[in-house]
Parts: sequence; C-alpha cells; structure tokens
Amino acid sequence: MQNFVFYNPTKIIFGRNTIPAIGPETAAWGTKALLVYGGGSIRKNGIYAQVTAALNEAGVEITEHGGVRSNPLLSHVNEGIAKVKKQQLDVIVAVGGGSVLDSAKAISAGAVVDHDVWKFFIGKKTIRRVLPLTTVLTLAASGSEMNSGMVITNDATRDKFGFGNRLLYPKTSILDPKATYSVPPDYTAYGAVDAISHVLEAYMTTQDPSTPVQDRFMEGLIRNAMDSCDRCLADPCDYQGRADLMWTATLALLGGGRPGPGRFPHAHDRALAERTLRRAARCRTLGGDSRLAPLAGRQRFKKNQAARRTAFRLQKKGGRVLGQCHDQNSRKLVRPDQQPDPAGGTGYPACGYSCHCRQRGPPGQDLAPERVRPRDHRRDPLPVPLKKWPVTAISSRTG
Amino acid sequence: MQNFVFYNPTKIIFGRNTIPAIGPETAAWGTKALLVYGGGSIRKNGIYAQVTAALNEAGVEITEHGGVRSNPLLSHVNEGIAKVKKQQLDVIVAVGGGSVLDSAKAISAGAVVDHDVWKFFIGKKTIRRVLPLTTVLTLAASGSEMNSGMVITNDATRDKFGFGNRLLYPKTSILDPKATYSVPPDYTAYGAVDAISHVLEAYMTTQDPSTPVQDRFMEGLIRNAMDSCDRCLADPCDYQGRADLMWTATLALLGGGRPGPGRFPHAHDRALAERTLRRAARCRTLGGDSRLAPLAGRQRFKKNQAARRTAFRLQKKGGRVLGQCHDQNSRKLVRPDQQPDPAGGTGYPACGYSCHCRQRGPPGQDLAPERVRPRDHRRDPLPVPLKKWPVTAISSRTG
Repeated sequence: MQNFVFYNPTKIIFGRNTIPAIGPETAAWGTKALLVYGGGSIRKNGIYAQVTAALNEAGVEITEHGGVRSNPLLSHVNEGIAKVKKQQLDVIVAVGGGSVLDSAKAISAGAVVDHDVWKFFIGKKTIRRVLPLTTVLTLAASGSEMNSGMVITNDATRDKFGFGNRLLYPKTSILDPKATYSVPPDYTAYGAVDAISHVLEAYMTTQDPSTPVQDRFMEGLIRNAMDSCDRCLADPCDYQGRADLMWTATLALLGGGRPGPGRFPHAHDRALAERTLRRAARCRTLGGDSRLAPLAGRQRFKKNQAARRTAFRLQKKGGRVLGQCHDQNSRKLVRPDQQPDPAGGTGYPACGYSCHCRQRGPPGQDLAPERVRPRDHRRDPLPVPLKKWPVTAISSRTG
Repeated sequence: MQNFVFYNPTKIIFGRNTIPAIGPETAAWGTKALLVYGGGSIRKNGIYAQVTAALNEAGVEITEHGGVRSNPLLSHVNEGIAKVKKQQLDVIVAVGGGSVLDSAKAISAGAVVDHDVWKFFIGKKTIRRVLPLTTVLTLAASGSEMNSGMVITNDATRDKFGFGNRLLYPKTSILDPKATYSVPPDYTAYGAVDAISHVLEAYMTTQDPSTPVQDRFMEGLIRNAMDSCDRCLADPCDYQGRADLMWTATLALLGGGRPGPGRFPHAHDRALAERTLRRAARCRTLGGDSRLAPLAGRQRFKKNQAARRTAFRLQKKGGRVLGQCHDQNSRKLVRPDQQPDPAGGTGYPACGYSCHCRQRGPPGQDLAPERVRPRDHRRDPLPVPLKKWPVTAISSRTG
C-alpha cells in the first residue's frame, strides 16, 4: 500500500425524510442563503417546497439561483457570485445533482474574492477561503456531495476544467433516497455507471501491487452499484435500491481520494483493457457477472473522450516535481514515474497539482497551484449530452 | 437501509516514514504539548525519538506523561489533566495504541473544565470543548485513532465506562505501519480479532433487513484482517501485511459508527450464535474459511463478559425516549423497539445517550447527556489482562 492522506470532513445525513434537516444545518453557518438548483424539476417533485419550508423555519433568508444545466457553465456561476456579493449572502445551499453541487462550490469559492473565479481553475490563484456550503442531493452519481472537487465549463473559451481544494467539501450533505424516486431510468443508469467508473478509475489504474483493503471495498461497491441499479430500473420507488445506489455512489469517491491506492498513474493505453478483463474475471468469482465487460467498454470510451481532450501538463518550476493531468477525472493522476519527494521527509509524493495530489503532499508544504498551468486545452468540444444516449447504448459500447 | 449520520473529520496520514508529520500537524493547533504514551516501548523502537525530534523541529514544547497501561485508569488521566492545567498546555499528542489514545481523549476533555472528568462518563456533564489532539498509532486494533469514543476505568470505584462525543475525534492521526513492526505476535493477533469484533458487532447485530453496501464493506474487512494477520504472524516486518492490518482496523470503526447499518439493537441472546454461523457460511462463499467460527466464540465470550457487567439504563425523563446500553461497546446500542422520533421530523431515532445515538439525533435537538444515568454498574471486575491469553487460546474459545 502506498502512502496517502485520508480526509473527509463532510457530515452526511442519510435516510428517509431527512430533507428538513437542511434548515438547522444551514442555519448553523449563516442566515442569508443562495439557493442553487437546476432546471426546476425539484419544484415538481416537492423537494423545493420541503427545502424552502425548512430554511424558512430555521430563519434562513433565501435568494434563488436556479437554472444550472448539465456541464455547468462559468457564466451562470458568475451570475450566482454577483448575487452573493450584491446581497451579502453568507451561506450557499445546493439542491440537485453533481452539476448543481459543482456550480455551488464554484460560487462559494468565487464569492469571497475580487478576481474572476476562473483564475482558480487555470491555476492563477489559490483558494484560501470559501463560503460554507450545504447540499441536498437529488441524483446518485457524481459523489460531489462528499468530495472536494468541481468541474466547470467556461462557455467563452469552451474549456472544461476540474479543480479541487480541501476547503470545498460541503459542510453537510442531506441524502434522502426518496429524493431520487423521480430520476428517469436513463439517468439512474448513467449514475450507476458513473459511480462504477469512479471506482474503476482507481481500481484499474493503480500501479500499487497490493491493495487488498481497497480492492475488496471497491469490488463491493461495483456489485452494489449493479445490483441496486437493477432494482431501481425495475421499480423507481424501491427505497432500498435507491438507498443502496445513493450511498454507493457517494462512497465511490470517498473523501478526497479513495483511501489508500495512493497514486493513480496515467493508464490510457492498451494495458487498461487487459487489466479490465483480468480484474473482471476475478470479480466473477465474487459473484459478479458479464456486466463488467460493458464497463470495460465504457472505460475505454472515457479514454477516447479523454484523448480527444488534449492534456494539460504541470510545469516543473522552482524544483517542483512534474505531473501530468488528463481529462476531467484525471485531477487525481500523478505521473507513474514520480518518486516520493526526498525533501518532504514524510514519504509521499509532492506534485504541483492542487487537488488530491496536494492533499497527499507533506503537511505544511506550499504546493502552490500558481505553478499549475494548463496548456493546449483549447477548443475542447463539449461532451455529448447524456440525454442522447438511450439506456441500451450503455451495453452496446463494449467495443 | 436505516437512517444514519456519517461524520468523520479526522485527517489520516498513512504510510512509510510519516511519523515526522506529527510536528507540523501538532504545531497547527498549539505550541505547548502534553505527550501521552504507554510503558516506554516507544523509547526502545525509536518512535519516541522520531516524535520528539519532529515536535522540537516544529517548535512544539513537550511535557511528558508516560505510563498509560492497558485498560487506562482515571487516576492517571487526572494526573495528565493536572499537568495540562498547571503548565497551561494547549494541545495533546498521543503516541501508542487504543489505551493511550483513550487516555489522551479523556485528558483533552478534562483539561478545559473545572469539575472531575469522570462526570462526563457518568452523564453528569456534557463535553462542550476539548483540547486538540494529534496521535501517532503504534498498535492496529482499537480504531480509536479515527473515532470519537474512549473507555476509561475508574480505579476507585472499579467502573469501566465508555463514552463518546463528536468533539473527541483526533485532529490528525499518523498511521505508519512500520511503527507496528515491534508488536509481538499475541498482540498482533488480538488486534486483528479486535478489528474483526468491531465489524461483527455491527454485522451480526443489526436488525436492518438489507444492508448490502455495509455488508460487502464489512465482509471485505474481515477477510483483510484475517489475511493480513497471517502475514504479520509469519513475518513481523512484512510492511504490506502491517499496512493492511492497520488500515483495516481503522476502517473497522469508520467514523462515529459504521456507515449505514443504522441502529445496533441489543442482540445478546441465542439468535446471535445462530446468525453468526449463517453469516459465516455466507462468508465462506467469498473465500472466508472456518476461522470465522472462532470469532463466533469470541463474540459469545464478549457477550458473557458483557453479561457479567450489569447494564445501565437510560431513564425516560422529560419525554425522552428510553434506551439501553450494555458493555463498553454498546454505547452504539439503541433499543430495538425504539421508534423514529415523530417530533424530530427527520426520521431518525432520538435517544438520550450522548454518543453515537446522539449523532443520529436530529440536528439542533438537545439530547442532554444529563439525562443519562448509569445504574447497577458497580463492582465490575476488571477484565483479564490480554497477556494471559496465548495466541492459541483464540481458536480454543470457540465453545
């Protein structure tokens, strides 16, 4: 097992009818909230009413900021930041899936600085402070409810950058499985595949020769995601299925990096497919089945998607170790040949990237994100909207 | 899946040569530290030298408080509290296993109040503030490095009480598997069994009919503990074995309650043994073997031990819901017939106990521990010291 830092301060309130807890949980941090949400589906399924009632009862004043779309846009984030600054709001409440939560994180970081929030994403500035964020999750998929990352698309430049900082963990996330009853079958399946992909990213790409603790944890999560997804597709109001899928998707990105696998080297090569099949065979002995094969395809699809996006590289500056980052998911990647920093003295690698790698850096060491500079990352085509993929397409993408 | 709250703010720094990190991690919280440790074995294996050097380098002044024994004593805790108060220390550093960490937690709570720290244990006072605590773990067993509980023995009354509070999570815990190289075979095995017991307490006693996410997580931990213990017994300096055992033992008490099983009803009856065997059979299909059977015995042994200790009951007072707590481990127990508090509105049970149950209570609700009153808990015989159990005795306790 390689060295790692595990840090996960988000408080999760999980279960039936827990949404009203958003009132006191938010009131503990502030009294004037920006309520961030998506396209308005929460108004139809009653979640909006529950959240606003709870906030009102707890004495929290609400300013609305709806309309977050999939692949959330910087322009919309900036509108939110403007509202927070103008009305001097002191807390952010996000109600939605990963896009809404990521938008809210960006607003929480951008609302306390005078410069453009995008400077965090391109490594020109470091997050030193954020507004507290509480969330109500309505889609089991991204894991954003219990991690420190966010992905935003700059609609002016068409850059889609991921970024993370330990200050971005939500203070509290409310996970009520009933809030996902109205998620349609296709999005339910995409969520399950998203969770499995998050697990496989670590499971299949780590170069650590022995990680049994993590392996068994991740194998369990993959099986949970498959089983619970089946239950949800058969009956969208199966509480147990929704609950299992929700908690699985959250644990798939447990904390700031799945605990223990250490470095996640860049594995966008043929070895990935080979390892997938070898691992899949191992999983079958644990009761898995051929459904893992499509996942390999999905993983390869992600690889191609990543290849289409050009990488950005972390420049070696001031004696810092080089790192390579590709794709929105690869913010956890550290170059495979990277050696533990002898100067650090604590045995884990130091790299210039400000997200998970930063968390693995020796405490107290300044891994200034100013040293991170994206390059050749222009003209990245926006990904195909998920809506265009029918459920059946998931298993057809096995080639 | 039943409702639960998951909250685990401790920062874990895991891996080779991470002990020097105790310096900056402690300096972030204070400059005058009480260094709590055990019988002095850390002086022999070099850990003491590493810790003190790191603290000195970080500018942290040290006051020593060694001599913590297994089943740590209140009198020794009180001596530590007196040192902290006299010298106005502002941070606690614990270097050792579960007993040392529990002592340090008690000191951190008692050093900021004027009354006897034992009042926390008997429910006369509530913890409102503690001194920050950082730890260096030297024994993979108790999970105290990443949880909010402590167990102290009052040597005057011979009471051995467990207690927990969300403020008691260590700020940072350093887990260097190499620090456990010198742990003798018997203690290594006891540690593994301790970790497995922590898992089984939840695994075998939950009345939740469906917890696949938690089940698979816990099944993996049990297998990890068995496998890694074998490796450590074969070669005490097997880094991988020590690392797996260490991380497994920590995860066995992940956060303030293993995530998700919800309530842990009191299951000290014959059904426990039956369920053990049924579950063990299931585990065998996952590659487990008959070593689970001795665990059932161990579990039953614990049951008897618990039976010898008389329970203390939480009195229904002022409309509070009744609860029952037995044994040092049963601070997580809530009465099986306890219903979710309709007044709470958030769906999870409210009980008067101040530990894990408290964390499951609706946010903002005052679950005053003053309402907890131990009864009939006197004359509890001190448990047999572990040293008297040879390794072979573990498997002989199957009856």
